[in-house]
Amino acid sequence: MNTLGDVLEHVVRDTPGAVGAILMGFDGIAVVQHVAPGREDFDLETLAMEFSYRFAEMRKAATSLDLGEVADLSVRTDRGAVVCRALSADYFVAIVMDDARHLGKGRYLLRSAASSLQTELA
Amino acid sequence: MNTLGDVLEHVVRDTPGAVGAILMGFDGIAVVQHVAPGREDFDLETLAMEFSYRFAEMRKAATSLDLGEVADLSVRTDRGAVVCRALSADYFVAIVMDDARHLGKGRYLLRSAASSLQTELA
Repeated sequence: MNTLGDVLEHVVRDTPGAVGAILMGFDGIAVVQHVAPGREDFDLETLAMEFSYRFAEMRKAATSLDLGEVADLSVRTDRGAVVCRALSADYFVAIVMDDARHLGKGRYLLRSAASSLQTELA
Repeated sequence: MNTLGDVLEHVVRDTPGAVGAILMGFDGIAVVQHVAPGREDFDLETLAMEFSYRFAEMRKAATSLDLGEVADLSVRTDRGAVVCRALSADYFVAIVMDDARHLGKGRYLLRSAASSLQTELA
């Protein structure tokens, strides 16, 4: 297990209802992921790939609309939530939860983890 | 001023840092909007049109990924935040803030306003 994986594991463990967290390039290629115990069947990579493209599009839109640099994007559904956070021009990290009530906690932990992840990626 | 406009005005007035709120079809056609006093130059409609397309795409992705129906989408940038909330298959409401610290308040007020807006739209 590497340090990036440890950081993701910590985020998943401390977020109630977290299914997993993944660090991915905006090109849709996964770097590392951590899936919660018992959720190994969850296809985190396919989900994150779908979000990578849409998150990148949203970042471009925000810049062109003069809204600034996107820090994070949160999607809440009737069955859970996904939070994506940009780490650099090339990478982002995402957490998937099956309980949207803890979206705020997941987002906070993702933000806290960002600098460690950025240090490891640099 | 109509009732839909009153609801949006209330949301904007009670959200610190709100620039405006808009009710729009997923086809990008605005129904009604309210811009905060002194922010009349802000092009809320163009911004919401850009988000309408991306929000609709995100809803389709969530459904195809078996994540469920998207309730809301929040984008936080270094200069503010945008929250979009689906009202029906055809309409959504969005709030734009120039202070991301109050994203939670804006999202809460948007959710509270949703049923009034849905009643008016029906």
